[in-house]
Amino acid sequence: MTLVDDLAAAVGAANVLTGAEAAPYGVDWMRHYHGRPLAVVRPGSTAEVAACVRVAAAQGVPVVPICGNTGLVGGTMTEGGLMVSLERMNRIRDLRPDARLVVAEAGVILQRLHEAAEEKGLYFPLWFGARGSAMLGGALSTNAGGSNVLRYGSTRGLCLGLEVVLADGRVLNLMSELHKDNSGYDLKQMFIGAEGTLGIITAAVMKLVPLPLAHATAMVSAASLPKALHLLNRMQEATGGRVEAFEFMPRSYSERLREVRPDLGLPFDHIPEVTILIEAATTVAAEGRPDATGEVPLVATLETVLAGMLDEGLIDDAVLARNEDQRAVMWSRREAAAQICVGLEPVVECDVCVPVDRVDAFLTHALARLQALNPGFREITVAHLGDGNLHFSVYPTRDDATLKDAVMDTVEDVVAGLGGSFSAEHGIGLSKLPSMRRRKDPVALDVMRAVKAALDPEGRMNPGKVIPPR
Amino acid sequence: MTLVDDLAAAVGAANVLTGAEAAPYGVDWMRHYHGRPLAVVRPGSTAEVAACVRVAAAQGVPVVPICGNTGLVGGTMTEGGLMVSLERMNRIRDLRPDARLVVAEAGVILQRLHEAAEEKGLYFPLWFGARGSAMLGGALSTNAGGSNVLRYGSTRGLCLGLEVVLADGRVLNLMSELHKDNSGYDLKQMFIGAEGTLGIITAAVMKLVPLPLAHATAMVSAASLPKALHLLNRMQEATGGRVEAFEFMPRSYSERLREVRPDLGLPFDHIPEVTILIEAATTVAAEGRPDATGEVPLVATLETVLAGMLDEGLIDDAVLARNEDQRAVMWSRREAAAQICVGLEPVVECDVCVPVDRVDAFLTHALARLQALNPGFREITVAHLGDGNLHFSVYPTRDDATLKDAVMDTVEDVVAGLGGSFSAEHGIGLSKLPSMRRRKDPVALDVMRAVKAALDPEGRMNPGKVIPPR
Repeated sequence: MTLVDDLAAAVGAANVLTGAEAAPYGVDWMRHYHGRPLAVVRPGSTAEVAACVRVAAAQGVPVVPICGNTGLVGGTMTEGGLMVSLERMNRIRDLRPDARLVVAEAGVILQRLHEAAEEKGLYFPLWFGARGSAMLGGALSTNAGGSNVLRYGSTRGLCLGLEVVLADGRVLNLMSELHKDNSGYDLKQMFIGAEGTLGIITAAVMKLVPLPLAHATAMVSAASLPKALHLLNRMQEATGGRVEAFEFMPRSYSERLREVRPDLGLPFDHIPEVTILIEAATTVAAEGRPDATGEVPLVATLETVLAGMLDEGLIDDAVLARNEDQRAVMWSRREAAAQICVGLEPVVECDVCVPVDRVDAFLTHALARLQALNPGFREITVAHLGDGNLHFSVYPTRDDATLKDAVMDTVEDVVAGLGGSFSAEHGIGLSKLPSMRRRKDPVALDVMRAVKAALDPEGRMNPGKVIPPR
Repeated sequence: MTLVDDLAAAVGAANVLTGAEAAPYGVDWMRHYHGRPLAVVRPGSTAEVAACVRVAAAQGVPVVPICGNTGLVGGTMTEGGLMVSLERMNRIRDLRPDARLVVAEAGVILQRLHEAAEEKGLYFPLWFGARGSAMLGGALSTNAGGSNVLRYGSTRGLCLGLEVVLADGRVLNLMSELHKDNSGYDLKQMFIGAEGTLGIITAAVMKLVPLPLAHATAMVSAASLPKALHLLNRMQEATGGRVEAFEFMPRSYSERLREVRPDLGLPFDHIPEVTILIEAATTVAAEGRPDATGEVPLVATLETVLAGMLDEGLIDDAVLARNEDQRAVMWSRREAAAQICVGLEPVVECDVCVPVDRVDAFLTHALARLQALNPGFREITVAHLGDGNLHFSVYPTRDDATLKDAVMDTVEDVVAGLGGSFSAEHGIGLSKLPSMRRRKDPVALDVMRAVKAALDPEGRMNPGKVIPPR
């Protein structure tokens, strides 16, 4: 088989997998997608990625990049394509504390970036549950979000420079380290969030930020979302924007959490309608080091805000993390989200975004309309409330493709009516193609097709993803 | 003349200018570029912009958008094209304080956005000297920077949504108001900084931020840049990132300022090698309202940092603004930059960016090499030092195109050697085309050409700008 031979010549036979060795790459971690790649190749450098892409181009074979395989939308699914795994491109090429940046390859696992930054007193602010296996290239290709977007922005906002292998095997070098660089079109933006459909991201220059000296973390119960939202506003006002995370766990989530992970406990003796996890952080000594009374001023600020809200009846209860262990337990409850949902079938995963003050309206309308559509459906929601981003998983009563599509359509409809988006941070892949077709501005879809055709005229880069066919 | 008739039918005869009425639009405000537009049309709505673009398309006429005409790179220069002035598209469509955003048309002058935001206790953080005439569309089309990028990012980072009229007259609606919206390629990024070569930006959704309660502003003198840079780092550390501006005026700038604007005075009784304007701001009452001693804590923090640096001999002198008038005078000295340079000829305007800690090396090397190239040249520099962005204007001894190009080439070479960019925030237009050809990754230029061809196959949108011909 020429393809395998040519690939072996490019990267070494040990790095070309076929058959049973290749099979695991064909299945996403949620086990919703099952594909059979023609082969999996594991290049170890940008030049090797380019060589593999040229081999594929010569043979007219589709190319599908894969990093940590933690995606949720079938973005790496392929039947007969060549998978290019970036796992061996795992070098941190440079980390410059004074410039507050790291230059890393696509296969570096996010947690390694966290650790490398922390050693230098810095923080890499892309933070989500899968950080122990998700890789930088995948995060960039999906413009991943996570729990700290509120303060530090999405992956896109953290990226200064990019290196990309194009469909024809040429290397596009956009590895700027500058905060201002207006030298023509900002091409890196096209590849961020393009899920490998325009080229393969092989490395990036990413911003780092100062490592917080201290966190103030609490779990809070409230009777309603509008009441709970005051907490975000008040804490932002009191700290001048030091809130890093504002996460929402509704009753349905807490109930499921208690079922699946009883070991984690629950913060309150009852399950409230609204549970909030709030975290603020500071890099300033005067705010983050214990004062004369032994208290950390940032924690005291959070306590004061919470006490005021308790007095006013805006919240019902609150528990502050008094040490790192307590903080870790609070985060475990939030980050169990994937684990407590995995295996529940049939499922329609909705990753939607609405304006922050319309999250409550979204839930009210969506639940009512789904109840009418499919009485008895279940739902588990967890949300980056500070961004208006809900992970809204719907479990219809039967595994029926028409019903599942109707569920998605209904959710989209509610979202659209509130000025929201049907896709917030997980990407499009295969699972959101119907939504793209139904909801995206047709002119925008046409422009996407034009860009795709310009950069990948043969349509071989991760074909069939992101853009629905005409 | 069919074009004029057709345009008049689209927007009314009063909004189609020709001859002497059109002529002023052909000249940029620095009077470096003199073009003769075929006509100037002033549409009043997105639909009218689209109609004008369709008229131009039908007749094969180039289309050149113009907003406030404050650009510095010849980006709106045209000989025989149809200029589409966005000046009548000056509506603020919506301003939502709770969502912290403003929806505005391309012809809204930045200062109006500042005023409208301030009325609601908010701040529109795009701030530069020309804010009284520069318009939103131009700021987006050049991805303008300015003095507050350090804290709030460039125009790109402030934009949530965009409305664009494409080359064929279709309207691309990307008016998302969300902070997370991953619904396919992020197309708005292509149009931001594209200087009208891919379409005409007609409106945008822009972020607003809380209005600072108080500023701490000072002018500081130092013997060298490396010493002065400690001030940025220490103040960022002391405030957790509340520095909004960190501007650098070297001796050459201060001397010219004294000549041209003696009314503004100078902060020190001698002209130092390095003059810094630093400003921090806070939205937190505990930091921004006078305390029991009558002092504003943020100002006290700056004072403490400055006192420490004086003690250590890192700075030589410092003057704090004690009221808004003093603050305004400090900013006038910085914002006189355009005025004190205008009319000096011949000039080579360099708008470069290098890593912050290499600004000193840039000046040393560039000045030495220019002295060798053209003994007796003059130079005036002013810099957004916090971003590593220098406005480095070189005045060669003779008006000789070859010499001027050699000056630019020399500066580019020094910049490239330091990992910098030949274009930071003013854009490419016509004046930086040679730099693009010499310095930009050839693969990147090819990709830009492919994108341009995909979106503007007839090459009629602001032709000849941004991308050098092959």
